[in-house]
Amino acid sequence: MERAKTITRRRVLAAGTAGIMGAALPIAGQNADQAARPKVPADPTKVQGPLATDVGGRSPFERPRRVSFSDRRTSSLSPLQDLDGIITPSDLHFERHHGGVPAIDPRQYTLLIHGLVDRPLVFTLEDLRRFPGRSIIRFMECSGNGGRAYRREGNQTDVTPQQIDGLTSTSEWTGVPLATLFREVGASPKAKWFLAEGSDAAVMTRSIPIEKAFDDALIAYGQNGEPLRPEQGYPARLFLPGVEGNASVKWLRRIELADQPFMTREETSKYTDPLPDGTARIFSLDMDAKSLITEPSFPDQLTGPGWWEIRGLAWTGRGRITRVDISADGGRTWQPATLDDPVLPKCHTRFRLPWQWKGGEATLMSRATDETGYTQPTLDVLMAARGPSTAYHFNHIRAWKVNPDGTVKFAGGGA
Amino acid sequence: MERAKTITRRRVLAAGTAGIMGAALPIAGQNADQAARPKVPADPTKVQGPLATDVGGRSPFERPRRVSFSDRRTSSLSPLQDLDGIITPSDLHFERHHGGVPAIDPRQYTLLIHGLVDRPLVFTLEDLRRFPGRSIIRFMECSGNGGRAYRREGNQTDVTPQQIDGLTSTSEWTGVPLATLFREVGASPKAKWFLAEGSDAAVMTRSIPIEKAFDDALIAYGQNGEPLRPEQGYPARLFLPGVEGNASVKWLRRIELADQPFMTREETSKYTDPLPDGTARIFSLDMDAKSLITEPSFPDQLTGPGWWEIRGLAWTGRGRITRVDISADGGRTWQPATLDDPVLPKCHTRFRLPWQWKGGEATLMSRATDETGYTQPTLDVLMAARGPSTAYHFNHIRAWKVNPDGTVKFAGGGA
Repeated sequence: MERAKTITRRRVLAAGTAGIMGAALPIAGQNADQAARPKVPADPTKVQGPLATDVGGRSPFERPRRVSFSDRRTSSLSPLQDLDGIITPSDLHFERHHGGVPAIDPRQYTLLIHGLVDRPLVFTLEDLRRFPGRSIIRFMECSGNGGRAYRREGNQTDVTPQQIDGLTSTSEWTGVPLATLFREVGASPKAKWFLAEGSDAAVMTRSIPIEKAFDDALIAYGQNGEPLRPEQGYPARLFLPGVEGNASVKWLRRIELADQPFMTREETSKYTDPLPDGTARIFSLDMDAKSLITEPSFPDQLTGPGWWEIRGLAWTGRGRITRVDISADGGRTWQPATLDDPVLPKCHTRFRLPWQWKGGEATLMSRATDETGYTQPTLDVLMAARGPSTAYHFNHIRAWKVNPDGTVKFAGGGA
Repeated sequence: MERAKTITRRRVLAAGTAGIMGAALPIAGQNADQAARPKVPADPTKVQGPLATDVGGRSPFERPRRVSFSDRRTSSLSPLQDLDGIITPSDLHFERHHGGVPAIDPRQYTLLIHGLVDRPLVFTLEDLRRFPGRSIIRFMECSGNGGRAYRREGNQTDVTPQQIDGLTSTSEWTGVPLATLFREVGASPKAKWFLAEGSDAAVMTRSIPIEKAFDDALIAYGQNGEPLRPEQGYPARLFLPGVEGNASVKWLRRIELADQPFMTREETSKYTDPLPDGTARIFSLDMDAKSLITEPSFPDQLTGPGWWEIRGLAWTGRGRITRVDISADGGRTWQPATLDDPVLPKCHTRFRLPWQWKGGEATLMSRATDETGYTQPTLDVLMAARGPSTAYHFNHIRAWKVNPDGTVKFAGGGA
């Protein structure tokens, strides 16, 4: 193990993200870093510290932040490179909305279920909470996640895991199985699809095959132990494990059962995958296996040759991740990583592999395989299948280039 | 399923906790509840909502809070009755400290490991982060938790799960296995114990058998995906899965290996269990199996006969929970509850059981069994073994009494 003084990851990040945040401008005549540094006692054992509080806060030395792509701020991305383990803190869970975040009084909240049912019913939030519940730890990913990596040339190199793939997060979700509610209303055997409708300003609507309701869909009211955060659909949302995030309609107010899909705007003009032959994949709901190395990554700089642990996340909408392989030579040779327990279905899985950097150039890649036997494809394979103009489901292998000076840059698909 | 309008749990709680918080005083001439209620649009679909943010917040309708027992505020308790699932949000994780929360600059942080080792070494935080890491989801419980329930008579009845047993929480902890560091320093075969010392104003010190270091002890720097919160030991702490919380020394600055325990203040005058025969259990580190019903509980009021889901948490420091049994008749008959996946070792486990309330008086109890075959004892059994004056490890069965009017009161050990 290298014992030399390292340039700290967090220090590098603080500098690297200043531009993104538009903050941390130097103060004239002062060392900006020192000026911003919170004061601490020289010897904390000599000072009685602050007492217990009703709600805890972060250390003033830690400022994890989501970032938005643009001033439109219709989404924000989780800081994947700053996160350990698999749980995403609720205030750093990525968000995506098409009409902003609605303000909803939980006492006024209702969910209507109607259409091909015996008994159309309106449920209050308390009704939902009273049914037998279930908690599950699962990822949620926007199907547009990673779009900026889907190109053969012209990739930006100075981008973080957050900027590339930050539209994925993992939480413990609590709610009532949708199957329970469908039995309560008496879903007709003729019902093959259901519509989920949100009460946001976009009135988000999606059609879902009814099998999903009887498989593992939840009406979720809880996230990481507490009520949903407003950006995640407070007070209740649809949650479809393993499915593209958009379909897990937030601020859910209505479900309608029917014998066919509703062909809403969000599944015709959007959230379809145009193919090179002029047709399109529609209802491409399941998220395929994917992985991403989060350490080392831009803007890290390795301080010297020696052992470094390669760390990252892998996930699949089709069950459990069964293996993750790592290449340090651009895909010529691969070694299996270890996976932290628990490896849960449709959930971020943390992988790790010690890697000895010899000091030269290296190209790091990760490749996930899931329990269906599916393996994350290369960019070439994915692009051959989907063409260059698809706008969703970018789960190809990603690469990071380590330069001889230790800097780490994004290298697209690694070609 | 009862479809009648229920008194909402959250509404009842808001009223019930106002006294604890010392807040929410009525405003003269106004309905206090309406005055405090945040405004929302009549139809959120007609209003563009707020855009994406760098860090998310809670709904203004949700104000989960830890509480402290006294003005000393040396601890705060997690709101167990408000939590779903098993993960405790980091800002609601219970805290306990003996000298307040020290402020530590992560760049100045060091951990010394010395004593019976080949190479005494000082590790920076970045050194710790560079070693191969591991993330685990585990509970942490103060061994004094539940002390107010350890009495045959005179129990307060108007107390919440938080007030009774809120000194337990579950997080995903990330860190470096202590075994890795002990191999790095070359722990001597003569070393049988190690001392962990904190840099808080109490200079907390505990002795731990060295086997624990080579089993599953971590030096933790991460909690629920992000750096430790200051109250939890930022920037690094000892984390001993399944062991009484006090021994997982926070703000860890020094570890010393020795051939015997150090017999510190915190393991002689404190954190020992005096027995009726005048001797004492010392180094009673492992937390025994325990469970608690969190719903229904005080201050809930059931709105009418019908089906209600009994929900709660079970945990053990000795491995996995294998079953939880529920009684609705004060312990005469028991029924097995279902356990939410994943059931992890040394981790909170969420149990559930539908229960049909007939409208009369009922006494609800839960009883956990772990993989060693150990079953949570009754108050009588525990008190016979430990006597009335022990101050730690109160894992006996708890009871809630449901009255004919639907009110729910704490009923101690249920005797």
